[in-house]
Amino acid sequence: MSEQYDAVDVIRTKRDGLPLEPGQIDWVLDAYTRGVVAEEQMSALAMAILLNGMSRPEVARWTGAMIASGERMDFSGLSRPTSDKHSTGGVGDKITLPLAPLVASFGVAVPQLSGRGLGHTGGTLDKLESIPGWRASLSNDELMAQLEDVGAVICAAGAGLAPADKKLYALRDVTGTVESVPLIASSIMSKKIAEGTGALVLDVKVGSGAFMKDLAMARELARTMVDLGTDAGVRTVALLTDMATPLGRTAGNALEVRESVEVLAGGGPADVVDLTVALAVEMLDAAGRPTPEADVRAALGDGRAMDTWRRMIAAQGGDPDAPLPVATHQRDVVADRSGVLGTLDAYAVGVAAWRLGAGRSRREDPVQAGAGVELHAKPGDLLDAGQPLLTLHTDIPERFDRALAALDGRWSLLDDDGAAPGAAGPLVLDRVG
Amino acid sequence: MSEQYDAVDVIRTKRDGLPLEPGQIDWVLDAYTRGVVAEEQMSALAMAILLNGMSRPEVARWTGAMIASGERMDFSGLSRPTSDKHSTGGVGDKITLPLAPLVASFGVAVPQLSGRGLGHTGGTLDKLESIPGWRASLSNDELMAQLEDVGAVICAAGAGLAPADKKLYALRDVTGTVESVPLIASSIMSKKIAEGTGALVLDVKVGSGAFMKDLAMARELARTMVDLGTDAGVRTVALLTDMATPLGRTAGNALEVRESVEVLAGGGPADVVDLTVALAVEMLDAAGRPTPEADVRAALGDGRAMDTWRRMIAAQGGDPDAPLPVATHQRDVVADRSGVLGTLDAYAVGVAAWRLGAGRSRREDPVQAGAGVELHAKPGDLLDAGQPLLTLHTDIPERFDRALAALDGRWSLLDDDGAAPGAAGPLVLDRVG
Repeated sequence: MSEQYDAVDVIRTKRDGLPLEPGQIDWVLDAYTRGVVAEEQMSALAMAILLNGMSRPEVARWTGAMIASGERMDFSGLSRPTSDKHSTGGVGDKITLPLAPLVASFGVAVPQLSGRGLGHTGGTLDKLESIPGWRASLSNDELMAQLEDVGAVICAAGAGLAPADKKLYALRDVTGTVESVPLIASSIMSKKIAEGTGALVLDVKVGSGAFMKDLAMARELARTMVDLGTDAGVRTVALLTDMATPLGRTAGNALEVRESVEVLAGGGPADVVDLTVALAVEMLDAAGRPTPEADVRAALGDGRAMDTWRRMIAAQGGDPDAPLPVATHQRDVVADRSGVLGTLDAYAVGVAAWRLGAGRSRREDPVQAGAGVELHAKPGDLLDAGQPLLTLHTDIPERFDRALAALDGRWSLLDDDGAAPGAAGPLVLDRVG
Repeated sequence: MSEQYDAVDVIRTKRDGLPLEPGQIDWVLDAYTRGVVAEEQMSALAMAILLNGMSRPEVARWTGAMIASGERMDFSGLSRPTSDKHSTGGVGDKITLPLAPLVASFGVAVPQLSGRGLGHTGGTLDKLESIPGWRASLSNDELMAQLEDVGAVICAAGAGLAPADKKLYALRDVTGTVESVPLIASSIMSKKIAEGTGALVLDVKVGSGAFMKDLAMARELARTMVDLGTDAGVRTVALLTDMATPLGRTAGNALEVRESVEVLAGGGPADVVDLTVALAVEMLDAAGRPTPEADVRAALGDGRAMDTWRRMIAAQGGDPDAPLPVATHQRDVVADRSGVLGTLDAYAVGVAAWRLGAGRSRREDPVQAGAGVELHAKPGDLLDAGQPLLTLHTDIPERFDRALAALDGRWSLLDDDGAAPGAAGPLVLDRVG
């Protein structure tokens, strides 16, 4: 079959700073999925897009073409409205775990099709797989039945959604073409729109522990994604949230599940609770079920969210009462003098948890369920000399040294001179809707 | 073996507008040649180089690394000085054919390691292969012996010279990354420096029939190549020459050999003679054998250049007296009214010759020896109604229509109002040395 366009012409168009025509975009993503456009041609195009950008209509078309490369899901047959959340990834970001059952407990279906972790920010499926018996893969029928019955599902995204994105993401990862707002936005939104959710709340992380270090770029990403969702008929809103310090007091798989269960039991760290509630309020509102914040918060204390969590875990074969795995070795990082914790760099904690075994370097690597970092203080807290700041967990004690190296110089103690310590900034930095 | 650098880091460096370190350049080209840096990684890097440029030290290092990827030749054992020429390619550019024996007839060795044509500008080896018996491949020993004995060699470049360039050129061809001055300059100069010539004259073509349409970009390319050659100890000079109109009166393989023999016999079109002489003067000067232009021109008329040509062809198995192949079909393009030829677009003539069978689309395609375009007039010439402007030659008459389509609207007749027709501009537009 003769092709309608030529890959080199498409590359040259973007290279020379001209807009890609709709037909060029449709063709190049379809031909790439079919293997007619070669990997080396797509990587040259991705670099040209990264350096020369794409306009709003181009990004919308690009996203549509990625959706068209695969199957679409349809939740319109459910008796409940659907609302989904996506986070761009941060250190200690376990929010999906308490959030999905919390929102579902208000009668809104939450289909969380998630991924595994690569790099320092961890994967939601890796965390839940530390629960004995729990399985990530569901058939479409199982997914629908669980959404109708329990309301909340966290499972592996099927391979059929946006296969062009899957192929392109793997390519971008090895060709230095990840850091492009149009490519990031279309990658996320193609999968979310193909999933067929009616409403979507985006948690765009900003700061050292996040992919976006810079507020202006994060805001541009949020704006681009909200526009893409809105144009596709999905009620979409984004919160820009701080990721300079790890979220909560744990980074690791079983460690984060334990903390999530604390939040579902009405306890847990304030930042995790506050962000879970803020995102739940947005998700309910976007789903057409506006709910006062106090009501949402109450559901974390009165067992409603916990009940949905237990049913959600059990529906996927997990035992919500089973003890969670614990790493075989622990080591503390202690304050060498007394003082107030000034900074605790999220990226450093993420890399330490990753090196301890909580994350993977290659897609085929296993992760350790018990490995990770426990935080005993947050910035502004007073520490006495000799008091532990962090506890490192791993099954492989040879990894302590490399984890400690990642943390070296990445936290600071200030003199406790009686002045009020610099209060932590607000967690939600901005809202784009 | 663990690698010293990471391909993604190298790509990101150039993507972010930073200079590549010398070690990064050495590594990335070596690792690409070894297959450790993948094609899709190199194409992303090539696009970043095309869009963000390279500084003079970066281009010099890049060229050096391409040379280091393969073997180097050494002509220092010859009793004659060496002088080489490279043309960036134009329509009807058969200059190498009369030029090499002309320069050699003054006692300077001319090693012309050439390529085959791809696209509309034709290849020197394709042209010579229309001579019965002539063969393009020589061993290194045969090459040296012929340089010492005859003085002139036109043969295929060995695969051992700059293999990184060979691989990179094929990649750039399919990824829209050809049109980069640093990449073009380093590609040409890595091969020429690896060949070991002592002097080099560059013919940088400018105009519709050339790769460089624009004088500013051609001047930048010339400057970059002259700097690279000079820094590597090769006496290098560049002429910028006009390629708006085809060179001479033929475009095609056997057609151009016939015209070259006319030049060597003291005849031929003035533009071919003038450019041959201008380049020969530069090559002799660069080789340390400065020769007055009149002496050079005389060698075309008195048999000295022709004698060297005949010995050069015979040394490679060719019969200089054998009749040249003639295409089986001819068709004329005639003037529909009388007038003065205003323009005759070089690119259109090149594409027509290519479509008639003189060139190839893919490296493995054969070419027709007899196919091509014969020009009966040059801009400024008066044509009567019904007089032929062009004759098209091919063995496959079905190709006439597509060749005619390429020429449609690409030449113009002006009213002969008695005013002097616009004289053709100068052939040599500038000199960079």
